[in-house]
Formats: sequence, C-alpha cells, structure tokens
Amino acid sequence: MPTALPLSAALLSLLTAAPKAPAPAPVTGPSPQVAERLIGAALTEGHAYARLAELTDGIGPRLSGSEGEQAAVQWAKRSFEADGVKVWLEPVKVPRWVRGEESARVVGSERHRAHPLSIMALGGSVGTPAEGLTAEVIEVRSLEEVAALGEKVKGKIVLFNHSMTVAADYGKAAGLRTRGASVAAKSGAVGMLVRSLATASLRSAHTGAMRYDEGVAQIPAAAVSVEDAELLHRLLAGGPVKVELKLGCQTLPDADSFNVVAEVKGREKPQEVVLLGAHLDSWDVGTGAHDDGAGVAMVMEAARLIGKLKPAPRRTVRVVLFANEENGLRGGKAYAEAHAGELANHVAALEMDAGGFKPLGVTLRAGPGGAELVAPWLKPLDALGAGSVLQGDAGGADISPLIPARVPFVGVRVDSSRYFDVHHSWADTLDKVDPKELAQSTAAVAWVGYVLAEVPGVLPRPEAPPAEAPKPAAAPVGTPKPAAP
Amino acid sequence: MPTALPLSAALLSLLTAAPKAPAPAPVTGPSPQVAERLIGAALTEGHAYARLAELTDGIGPRLSGSEGEQAAVQWAKRSFEADGVKVWLEPVKVPRWVRGEESARVVGSERHRAHPLSIMALGGSVGTPAEGLTAEVIEVRSLEEVAALGEKVKGKIVLFNHSMTVAADYGKAAGLRTRGASVAAKSGAVGMLVRSLATASLRSAHTGAMRYDEGVAQIPAAAVSVEDAELLHRLLAGGPVKVELKLGCQTLPDADSFNVVAEVKGREKPQEVVLLGAHLDSWDVGTGAHDDGAGVAMVMEAARLIGKLKPAPRRTVRVVLFANEENGLRGGKAYAEAHAGELANHVAALEMDAGGFKPLGVTLRAGPGGAELVAPWLKPLDALGAGSVLQGDAGGADISPLIPARVPFVGVRVDSSRYFDVHHSWADTLDKVDPKELAQSTAAVAWVGYVLAEVPGVLPRPEAPPAEAPKPAAAPVGTPKPAAP
Ligand SMILES: [Zn+2]
Ligand SMILES: [Zn+2]
Repeated sequence: MPTALPLSAALLSLLTAAPKAPAPAPVTGPSPQVAERLIGAALTEGHAYARLAELTDGIGPRLSGSEGEQAAVQWAKRSFEADGVKVWLEPVKVPRWVRGEESARVVGSERHRAHPLSIMALGGSVGTPAEGLTAEVIEVRSLEEVAALGEKVKGKIVLFNHSMTVAADYGKAAGLRTRGASVAAKSGAVGMLVRSLATASLRSAHTGAMRYDEGVAQIPAAAVSVEDAELLHRLLAGGPVKVELKLGCQTLPDADSFNVVAEVKGREKPQEVVLLGAHLDSWDVGTGAHDDGAGVAMVMEAARLIGKLKPAPRRTVRVVLFANEENGLRGGKAYAEAHAGELANHVAALEMDAGGFKPLGVTLRAGPGGAELVAPWLKPLDALGAGSVLQGDAGGADISPLIPARVPFVGVRVDSSRYFDVHHSWADTLDKVDPKELAQSTAAVAWVGYVLAEVPGVLPRPEAPPAEAPKPAAAPVGTPKPAAP
Repeated sequence: MPTALPLSAALLSLLTAAPKAPAPAPVTGPSPQVAERLIGAALTEGHAYARLAELTDGIGPRLSGSEGEQAAVQWAKRSFEADGVKVWLEPVKVPRWVRGEESARVVGSERHRAHPLSIMALGGSVGTPAEGLTAEVIEVRSLEEVAALGEKVKGKIVLFNHSMTVAADYGKAAGLRTRGASVAAKSGAVGMLVRSLATASLRSAHTGAMRYDEGVAQIPAAAVSVEDAELLHRLLAGGPVKVELKLGCQTLPDADSFNVVAEVKGREKPQEVVLLGAHLDSWDVGTGAHDDGAGVAMVMEAARLIGKLKPAPRRTVRVVLFANEENGLRGGKAYAEAHAGELANHVAALEMDAGGFKPLGVTLRAGPGGAELVAPWLKPLDALGAGSVLQGDAGGADISPLIPARVPFVGVRVDSSRYFDVHHSWADTLDKVDPKELAQSTAAVAWVGYVLAEVPGVLPRPEAPPAEAPKPAAAPVGTPKPAAP
C-alpha cells in the first residue's frame, strides 16, 4: 500500500527523533548474531559436558605429578587441536605428593570399643611411622584455642572440630586445614586431624592442601569425616580418647608438568590478552568433576566457540589450564613469571573454579567504571539469570599471582551452595554435574570472554595491592580458594 | 462457701446427664495419668537416646557372631537389669560371616584409565580367589532380563543396575540384592554386582543380605555405590568394560548367640503376651544406629517405663531383642520355635525396624474390628501426629515367623523417607538420629504397648496365611524388610 509509506516514514522519523534529551551515550553494543551463536551453541551442543566426561571418566583423577595428570595434559592438547585452537605446553615443575595406605581408629577403652575412623591424609602431609602413631586427642575449634591450651596440647593429636555447615563457611574453616598442623606442632602436638570441610556427609573424608611452617616440627595431618569428628567429640565428653593414626603418604622429588595454553588471536589488538583459566589438576580421590573438570570444560568450550567466530574478536582470548592448583599453585606462579613481560597487556583474567553449577552473574575486580563498561554487554545472559554485575570480588587461586601486575579480574559466579558436598572427596564425580547447569555456565563464560575481547574499551585496572606481608612463608598457597558466594 | 455446693452439684448432675441420646458405647478409656506418665517420660527424659548412644558409640557394630554382638547382648542384659526389668537370654545359633579385605576396579582400556570402585561384599557372599576375579561386566535392570540375555551372561559379572530412588522402591529392588547372584549364576555368570539400595549417595556402598539357591554355583556378590554403577553404565555405552573384583569374605562355623528377652508381668492376665520387638544385631559397617539401634532403644525404654507403672497393665509386655535379623533371621525363628506353645496367647506383636524417625501413626495386621478396638485409645498420641490407625499392614522380619500362629501385628509407622540414605552403610551412625524424633517414636511405642496390654478386649486374630509356597528354599530370608511407607 504505497499511500501508507510517507506517513509511516514521517511517523518513524518522529518516533526515533524523540525524546531529544538526554542524548544516549554512543555505546557500540554487542552483536546479536554473535550472542546467538555462542550462547546457542553452548546450550544446545552438549560439547562441554562431553569433554568433562572424557576428562573424568576417561582420564580420572590427576594429582600433580601423577600419570593421570600427564594423561590429562596430553588429552587437553589433543582436544584443543581437534577444536582447531592453537595450543602449546609451558613447562612447570610440580610437587609430587603421593598418598599411601592410610587408616585410623579410636583405640578401645573401658567406656567404648574400638571404632575405625574415616580419614584422608591432607595433601603435603608427612606420613606416620609404619606402626602408626597413637596418642590422646584434644579437641579445639580454632587456631587461637591451641595456643590458649598451652602445655595440654603436648604429645596429643589435635582435632580441629570447626562448625562449617554451609559453603560460605569454607574460607574461614580452610585455614584450620591449611595451617592447623604447624600451629598444633608449635604447642608440641604429635598429630593433627581436621573435621572435613563439608556441607554434606555420609562418613566422607575431604582432603585438601596443608603446609608446614619453616622451623616447626612436621606432624602428620589428616581430614576426618564429619561423623567421626562428632563421634570423637561425644567420646571426649566421657574422658580421654586415644586415636591410632597410620599415614603412608610421602613427598617425592618434583615432577615435570605443564600449563596447557591455547589461544584465539585477536583481529585488531592481538597483543591484548583476555585470559580464561581453570586448573587441570585435581586431588587423587574422585575424578575432579566439579573441581575443576567443570571449569576446564567451560573454558575449553569457550575457546572452541570463540575460535569459530569470523571475524575473530578484537583482542586475543587465551585459555590457560593451570597445573598444580591444588597443592602448590606452581602453575599459576609459572604463568605469571613466564608472561611477566606481557602482563601489562593482560586486559582481563577470569578463572572458573567453583564447580559446574548454574551461573548467577558476573563479578569484577577492576578500577572505577569497570561495571559501567561491562554491564550493557551482559544483556544476552539475562535469560540465563546471569546478566547482572554482582557485588563481590572476582578472583581465583591461579590468577592471584597476576594481582601485583594489576590485571583486572572478571568472574562468572556460579551457585556453589552444594559444592562442598563433594569437594575434594571421592564423591566429586561426573554424576554430580548437571549437564544443563554446566551448559548454562559455559554459555556465560563464552559470552563474557567474547565481551572482554570485543568491547571497545578495556577495564580500568584495579589499585595496586598493599605491600607484601613481611613473612612470605606464612602466605597461604594453593587452597584455600575464594569462599563460595 | 457452703451455699454454692448444692447448686454446683445440681449443675454437674445436669451436665453429665445430657445429652441423653445416642448413648455412647461403654468403652473404658485409657487412664490419662498413665498417658501423662509414659508419654511425658519418653519425651522429656532422653533415656532412649542415651541408651542408643551406649549401643552405637559404646558397643558399635554387632554383626551376628562378632565380638560386638556378644558385647551388645551383655549390655542389653545389664541395661534391663539396671532398669529393674526381668530379663533372660534364649540361645540362638547364628551364622558367622566375616568380611575380609575387599576391593574392585575398572580395568583400564584404550577408552579409559582404571577406576577404583566403591564396593562392599553382600552378607553371605563367598569370596573370590585371592588374586581376584576379572571379567567383563554385563548390565541388567531386573532378574528377568538375565534370563532373556541367555548365553551373553556366561563368564560375565552381572551388574544389577536398578532405578531405586525413593524409600518406597526398596522392597522391589531388594530382590535383586537377595536373589541376583543365583539368578545370574544359573546363566553362567561368574560374579554379581548390585547397585546399592540407596536414596542418597556420596560414593557409599550399602551392604545387605543375599542367599544362594541350592544346586547353583555360588558366585561372589557385592554392592557397588550408585556413583560407580552409573560410571559402569556410562563406560559400557562405549564398549566392553572389565572389572576386577577381590572379596576376602568367608562363612565360618555357626556361633552361639542369644535373643534377649525381658518382660513386665501382667496384673490380671499374665499369660497373655504383648510382644515388642527390635533386632540387636547390625551389619558390620557403621554402628547400626537407625538399623536397628533405634528400635532397640525404643522397646527397651517402653519396657522400663511400663515396668514402673503401678499397677502393672492387665497383660504381660514382653520385649524381645532378636538376634541375627540381618543375615539369617535365626533369632526370629528361634523365638517362634521356643515359644510355640504360648503363641496362641500372644495377643499382639510389634517390631520397630524402620529407623529412629518421627512416628506417623499405627498400623495393624488383625482380623475385622481391630482398628475399632484400638483407635479410641490412641488419642494421647494425637499431639505427636501419631494418633490414627493408618492403612497398610503391620509386620517385621523377626515377627514374621509368628504369622502361621495368627498373632495379630501392630506397627508404629515412622517417617522412613530418609532411612535408605544410610541403611546398611558406614553412615548409619548416631549423628543421623534426631533425639527429638527418637523420643517421639519411643513415646508412641510405649503408649501402644501399654494400650495393647491394658485395653479390655484383644485384637481379632488375622486370617490364616495361605499354604506355604512349594519351594521353601526360594523364600526370602532376613532382609528384604517391609518397604518403608
Ligand atoms: Zn579447584
Ligand atoms: Zn533392621
């Protein structure tokens, strides 16, 4: 109907002209086609979950220095190659701690018969003598309480029986696991048990990293199941309780491993790097499905999907699968050292390491104006419930060595409320990962990675960190990880 | 004020006289004082939970023929004596099956590396050769499917990978555990794995009873964790999967044990017996807190509280802590034999064996008119949510040998929806029992026991059971227990 045309055009002109003020800022928004492609593929192709199955069911556990870790490195390299993504290996010397035979029991007494305990040596612990170590248990709730007990700790096995019940408690309780042995040893303890850092338990022990302070006796340290920590608590109410602990673990010479690095070169500013990270290693129990197979699957899939975009995004997207997050952080440190010269050009770093759960939104650790830069580009994630910038810092153990270089951090926060049901335990297996949730988080990571590589501006860099603490030996390494939201 | 007296008396007379019609049936109701005493004590004194702690933390597991079982028998005897309840031991020969070293793993292949499996031998299983048994796995969902597969089963380890997800599925799935090995062996299988009968799992194996059919090869049988059953299912989708199974279990000669029998003599009809039962044995893993320490604590406390009533109830209340429910039912059979002459005077039998959970109501297995007899006396349980007669049979493995004698059964149904999270696993420990819920069920059991001993009439006896199935060897023994509601 030609008569309608002049009117429509006039109306259109009127509508688009008004309102005149205030004039919207000339923001170049994200391409809807790219959003469709990245998010649509992540949600429909199931590629990340299939990769996670290869890594968990096919490779299995992959503690630093183990055959599983080596197999995982080769698998990751092959997988990037199969995806058409450029990949290379960067050498990292990793600690090699190996679990041995291990057991513990409450020694029988007049008040009670013997009870086996469900325990797991903490990563890095020394072993006990082959015949085991038998001592009375003394129960504390905090590191401070050990010092307050003074002489009473001497010759005892200290049980750190904290009150973690929800994921948000992890950050606080992890200090007991990491530092408890040395704090106890300073007061003369001969062994250390920590209640597993768990939000659910079916007599499950949860391992994790610990470290010894220099100049302090190295005493054996193990996690004990929540049930058994409660058993010890009840038995202690009736009088002295002895525990026999046998740990066959030991530390072997460092092993050769690698960070697996892959990248999609930027079309316009290839020297500017957006780093998407996860850690390829896991503990030696379970198959590291949530920790951190899920993160690995997400960032690998982000690289694959971004790598297929024509044209490529403005900046380089680099995926790093870090070695040795769990018990040494050697991969994160090695990356920061090897790439020291280009960290000023790292415009953003993101690490996925809180499980393969549904995405909740985006977090930032950047200078003022960061949220304003990113927020308008997150709309495509609204339907996944992840399109907002959330309060709270972004971070990640492996990217923490980038802090001195003031690299801006970005996070895709996931719903980690059930993460510590399985974290660092035998139950961290593929069945615990919901393929739908993993696909949603993968979509969010792919999109955020693209946004950071394509958005016209770059994130303002955060403030320089405060001066280093005077005693670097006291700084935690490896875990604890950032507490879940 | 003396003037008020005549008026009050007149008013009282008027009130109690009206309404004239319809005349209420002349039911002698329960004594409010007794209800207060029994229910009040059970809810406030915490005695049942303290006893449960002694049994679980103090004695621990108590598989038939073990030292723990012997210790439990002596503990129970001492405890009844301390409560001032007459107690004696009735000898029972029990099977003595002992678990040995056990392990299993998926053998590595080109498609996947090796995986350890979380398994537990089923009670009664034969062991494997010391070097283990290695064979391909074949997965089925039902006993029927084994027969349908025919020759394909030969030389394989059959995995019964059922779909139990809720407590109500237990009854059906338990048949796979109990009968699966012999059904598989008939088709030439060399080993059997059953997915654990669990409603929650953190890679937890759940043991339980199995039996071999006569004249069929006895093949090793173990439960595998839900996670590992799912792992095997996924791996099998990619091709053949081999499992190596090592079970060190064996059956030793029968051992001497006892039913622990205690009673409070009736004041008027001492020859009429109300039996309150539970089983004292447990599996060798965990401490049998829900299964069946809780039942033991409830009926022991019922005896203690009823024993303190002056006068005693009309009939005798007899508490029986049965031996060997889990792997033989020898205690239940021995009781029925030893007391054959007085079963006609067993006016009711109740067994608590579905966990220490909150009470939901009362069930009956009696002739017509049973509910009408009991219902008016249950009002004192209304405030606990347990004052109604519910649909569904009452029963219990240990009292099932009383069925031919037409003993009426009564049940206090509990909310067993979470029972199979821990049932027959390492996680069945005291911490899983809520002291409040245990106190409530104890109150219900004490009250129901009193009611059955005091109510003027007796429950009509149920119909005689149908004639025995022709092949007694095929009748299930021990578990499976009645499915949870
Ligand atoms: Zn991690
Ligand atoms: Zn039972």
